[in-house]
Amino acid sequence: MIPGPYLLYLGHSDDEVGIKTSRGLAAFRRDDCVGEWRHDDCPLTLGIPRMDVAAARAAGARTLVLGIANAGGRLGDDLIDDALLAIAAGMNVASGLHQRLRDEPRLVAAADAVGVALFDVRDAPAHLPVGNGKRRAGKRLLTVGTDCSVGKMYATLCLRDAMRARGVAADFRATGQTGILIAGDGVPLDAVVADFIAGAIEVLAPARDDDGWDLIEGQGSLFHPSFAGVSTGLLHGAQPAAIVLCHDPMRAHMRGLPHYQLPDLATCLEANLQVARLTSPDVQATGIALNTVKLDEDAARRLCADTAQALGLPCTDPYRFGADPIVDWTLTCFAPAAPAMTASR
Amino acid sequence: MIPGPYLLYLGHSDDEVGIKTSRGLAAFRRDDCVGEWRHDDCPLTLGIPRMDVAAARAAGARTLVLGIANAGGRLGDDLIDDALLAIAAGMNVASGLHQRLRDEPRLVAAADAVGVALFDVRDAPAHLPVGNGKRRAGKRLLTVGTDCSVGKMYATLCLRDAMRARGVAADFRATGQTGILIAGDGVPLDAVVADFIAGAIEVLAPARDDDGWDLIEGQGSLFHPSFAGVSTGLLHGAQPAAIVLCHDPMRAHMRGLPHYQLPDLATCLEANLQVARLTSPDVQATGIALNTVKLDEDAARRLCADTAQALGLPCTDPYRFGADPIVDWTLTCFAPAAPAMTASR
Repeated sequence: MIPGPYLLYLGHSDDEVGIKTSRGLAAFRRDDCVGEWRHDDCPLTLGIPRMDVAAARAAGARTLVLGIANAGGRLGDDLIDDALLAIAAGMNVASGLHQRLRDEPRLVAAADAVGVALFDVRDAPAHLPVGNGKRRAGKRLLTVGTDCSVGKMYATLCLRDAMRARGVAADFRATGQTGILIAGDGVPLDAVVADFIAGAIEVLAPARDDDGWDLIEGQGSLFHPSFAGVSTGLLHGAQPAAIVLCHDPMRAHMRGLPHYQLPDLATCLEANLQVARLTSPDVQATGIALNTVKLDEDAARRLCADTAQALGLPCTDPYRFGADPIVDWTLTCFAPAAPAMTASR
Repeated sequence: MIPGPYLLYLGHSDDEVGIKTSRGLAAFRRDDCVGEWRHDDCPLTLGIPRMDVAAARAAGARTLVLGIANAGGRLGDDLIDDALLAIAAGMNVASGLHQRLRDEPRLVAAADAVGVALFDVRDAPAHLPVGNGKRRAGKRLLTVGTDCSVGKMYATLCLRDAMRARGVAADFRATGQTGILIAGDGVPLDAVVADFIAGAIEVLAPARDDDGWDLIEGQGSLFHPSFAGVSTGLLHGAQPAAIVLCHDPMRAHMRGLPHYQLPDLATCLEANLQVARLTSPDVQATGIALNTVKLDEDAARRLCADTAQALGLPCTDPYRFGADPIVDWTLTCFAPAAPAMTASR
């Protein structure tokens, strides 16, 4: 486990997408984040106190989280110098970047000297099994998407919180760097070797018999030509009872691929159900989650209503309007069967 | 490149499936294999001369190929001792086992001392890109399967040979250990990190404009719950113009999974076409390849005829009866369009 509380790093970032890990922590682990560390040229903020390493340490921060992404996932000199400052102040450092902290000798030497730890959350667990597809007990919900980065992690966490709010046991199962930092554990699926994708998810969300839910963070999209293999293995490993389709209505084309259009929601939903049925024959779609951050409230509510009508499923922006409509319907679909009526006389 | 000729290792193997790499080399690189090395307790043979290391060396062998698989893909002491004998005799050693030769200090030290090389063909190339899905020039055919290990590699190689026999430029693109040893290069797809499956295939079979064919070795099956992610990424990365469905009619259940039945051929073909259309909208199925090794010739020919009739596609056992029916139809489907007729006057 990565010791909290955290100082969230923004550094010199000027790209909202690039700070999504820091923002996710601020959104879902707010109480564990003492502040954000950004340089003067960083125009972005998480809306939490700005502080430097010394102030953060004084406020109790134990780990600097390098919650940013940059081109190629590399540790540049700026990033290394800043991490060295945090280490010198006695803080651990955690990173979800592709280039590992432990591969940078200066960081390793400094951490050893001070006695703090380096956490590379993109490391895949050792000794993952190949998936076996055996039906396992428990209720699992998987978020799927029309594209990458459409809000699957946010939707999954909101569904967890809404279930917990009504006393249903519910656990978030993280499959990406940000989710892992929020949850404290998980499997960084994009670092798993291809043969073990489904097996990794079988391990991440094992059989459970407490009538609670595992809410599994989806990745990629069956319609993204770069990552559909990951999404396929995730569907098979998850054996979901329920899937929730996530979508960004403002997305003009598949992420990073201007030559690919987004699928329509009905086609995407049916394709996901078809793939999921291989290991979970009775899988049901139980909702649509829209990321409406770029729409005004009236337009967002209207779009949710229209989408619900068109697809015959509850639709909400779970982060903006709450996940209750989807949770209501999911719990209804999977309620224990009513006791059978026995004919009297 | 791995220096030939080869000595093919069977060792103490008593399981036909376990020697498939050695058998594949004997089948498709016969002229480069001086013999097989098996111990007295090995009941199997490739039908080529049995010889020990000294005899193989005298016959010109330059590399011992550990063309066997064992539980867990590990290098046991037997295997290491035998590899050390080959090294002492001046031979290189090549392996497709999961456990790497280079991770065994005794082998590394011996190879260094003698001046020979160790080849781990399961190593994935460094710096693979993420797939981009951009349409690229050239004609590619991908073999797909109802299951793992149903003859996709054999079918692909037979298709190549049949195309070459009629003067069509055709290259085999290997995606597994055996195929890589046969071809001399390729990408061991099961060792590639999940995010790079499609990208690896885009690199393996790049654009070509010589009117020739890239024949890509398929892996897994969309209907195998352990490996469908690999098959999906392979379909997307390959952008196949044509797919050929491979099937073992005697397979009782999905390989390794008694609780999963095989899909029927029509369902499997349609699912593969549907996935392939994302990056190759005009993809066509051009044949069915059956592995009829366990049927007598009459039954095999009848089954091919019945299957062709049922699916409306040429069907053959390409290794037993030749790949011509599929090649004929494939070349017909993708023949250059006849010059447009111009109306006279």
